[in-house]
Amino acid sequence: MSEIRKDIITGNYVVIAVERSKRPHDFAHKRPPKKGGFCPFCYGNEQETPPEVAALRPDENTEPDTPGWEIRIVPNKFGAVKPDIELKDCKDGIYSYVTGRGAAEVVIESPRHDSTLGSHEPEHVNNLLKMIRDRYNELGSDENISYVQVFKNFGPTAGASLEHPHWQIISTPLIPTNVMDELKGTENYYRKHGTCPYCEMIEEELKDGSRIVAENDYFVALCPYASRFPFETWILPKEHNNCFGKLTGKEFGELTEMLQGIVKKLELGFDYPPYNIVVHSNPVDGVDRDYYHWHIEILPRLAIMAVFELGTGYHINPTPPEIAADSLKEIGG
Amino acid sequence: MSEIRKDIITGNYVVIAVERSKRPHDFAHKRPPKKGGFCPFCYGNEQETPPEVAALRPDENTEPDTPGWEIRIVPNKFGAVKPDIELKDCKDGIYSYVTGRGAAEVVIESPRHDSTLGSHEPEHVNNLLKMIRDRYNELGSDENISYVQVFKNFGPTAGASLEHPHWQIISTPLIPTNVMDELKGTENYYRKHGTCPYCEMIEEELKDGSRIVAENDYFVALCPYASRFPFETWILPKEHNNCFGKLTGKEFGELTEMLQGIVKKLELGFDYPPYNIVVHSNPVDGVDRDYYHWHIEILPRLAIMAVFELGTGYHINPTPPEIAADSLKEIGG
Repeated sequence: MSEIRKDIITGNYVVIAVERSKRPHDFAHKRPPKKGGFCPFCYGNEQETPPEVAALRPDENTEPDTPGWEIRIVPNKFGAVKPDIELKDCKDGIYSYVTGRGAAEVVIESPRHDSTLGSHEPEHVNNLLKMIRDRYNELGSDENISYVQVFKNFGPTAGASLEHPHWQIISTPLIPTNVMDELKGTENYYRKHGTCPYCEMIEEELKDGSRIVAENDYFVALCPYASRFPFETWILPKEHNNCFGKLTGKEFGELTEMLQGIVKKLELGFDYPPYNIVVHSNPVDGVDRDYYHWHIEILPRLAIMAVFELGTGYHINPTPPEIAADSLKEIGG
Repeated sequence: MSEIRKDIITGNYVVIAVERSKRPHDFAHKRPPKKGGFCPFCYGNEQETPPEVAALRPDENTEPDTPGWEIRIVPNKFGAVKPDIELKDCKDGIYSYVTGRGAAEVVIESPRHDSTLGSHEPEHVNNLLKMIRDRYNELGSDENISYVQVFKNFGPTAGASLEHPHWQIISTPLIPTNVMDELKGTENYYRKHGTCPYCEMIEEELKDGSRIVAENDYFVALCPYASRFPFETWILPKEHNNCFGKLTGKEFGELTEMLQGIVKKLELGFDYPPYNIVVHSNPVDGVDRDYYHWHIEILPRLAIMAVFELGTGYHINPTPPEIAADSLKEIGG
């Protein structure tokens, strides 16, 4: 039998195959062969990208846009939005658009082409997360910008057009509708129940335990009740906080531990599967939505999204989150 | 520069690359090699599927579930929902689900494994559309069912797990949230402007012409202003009508002409690209939403959907619909 589960925040439905569930060995994923060829993100090719906007250079004597960096942030050469475009609302017959003001930046995660998020030293990931937070806050300070999206695509079928490990940051003048749906869902839940649905979820999931993957002082990782993707895992701060940009102090170390822990499990259990990581945070439009709870969603892409998802917003997930959480807990120890 | 265009119905945003637009030759798609191997949809393998629920058998002396059919509809052996499940609302801690009642059927489009939607005789596609309409109405008559989704996936990267040409019909007890968003968007537009947004779109697009691909007595094909995918094309009935299930008489011939016309252009222009076809129709929950306007969306999948789409609902489309419509008009013409 299947259960058509409802996401308590967005109201979206997911069809979960409770019978004939797929376990990790049913997803016979093999890491795709290395493409090789020229890489604009490797040492020595710094001139192939626009000039860096930030870099971690342990040796302070190295020049910008030359080797010596450990992490490097550059504008996306092919970015769909640009920071120097004047923001304008335009009419076009019965339609309307706004000009593509915004920033599209690439965070080159490491100079090592073959490294992965799971393979770095924790200190390196700490630095990576701090630099991403700083760019998040910097891009969010543009008063024309309403939303800053931080994400990582890994693997060609997850949308990563380049192999070299990287993250992306895109800022836009509008709040995207999916984000708005999540914000409204959270607000509605808050008004109805007097509590943040994410806080409630954390409390209930920790009590129940069946969908918990990991926990440390500041964060919890769980496979959500209405998981859209097999082995989908969310990392949530235990303490209510609406903004990724406010991440600070000891939280970085704990987030690194949690994020690398999950990604290592995926790398090990599924031979470096394609995945997306998406940071969900309060918009930077100046409205402080107290009720919102920032978090990170890790979305393994072990199956092609089919049209049933596209046409209706229903996802079909062959792996119940209870089995996903159990399997993930076992991988690597 | 890019334009962040707004869909007048759903309010969704699409980033359209107006500069450096991609034209057909920029999508170097090659038809994937034939997989071969055993096919449960070919003649002689009828016992590999559940028994047929409908079939077109020109020779009335052939038995069900044996060769001789031209179109065959069977339950999906691996369907995520089942017609014999009792519909129940269930609580699960702070969450809820409904049991997976519904039908998942496969419409085997032709006995010819290598045929495509573009290659059939028009009379055959007429019959196909009539049979799909009949199953749509039959499945919609179950009072536990609220929505019937008709769709076709072509090509592995569009979610077609089998090569043999087929459509799918899935009925579910709930109205999916994406469908609900479209219905609400249409209703809001109707209340604000006193007119159906699709009717308005058809009128304005026919006047303007730049996004029109084809037109006949009953239908118009256009690339929508806020196209999410390169070469996305919608087929809309010119006369306002909310339900695919009411399709009748001469409309079938005209729809066949329009649908095959577009699909042939894609097959010819992009070497049989992966695509999805999704029928959008009023729910079958007994509420007659007069304001809604049924239509068909054809979504070529020339690029992998990346996480920016997943995370935010923003799509980035490198081909403006004006260029898409122009190019489609030229192909094969």
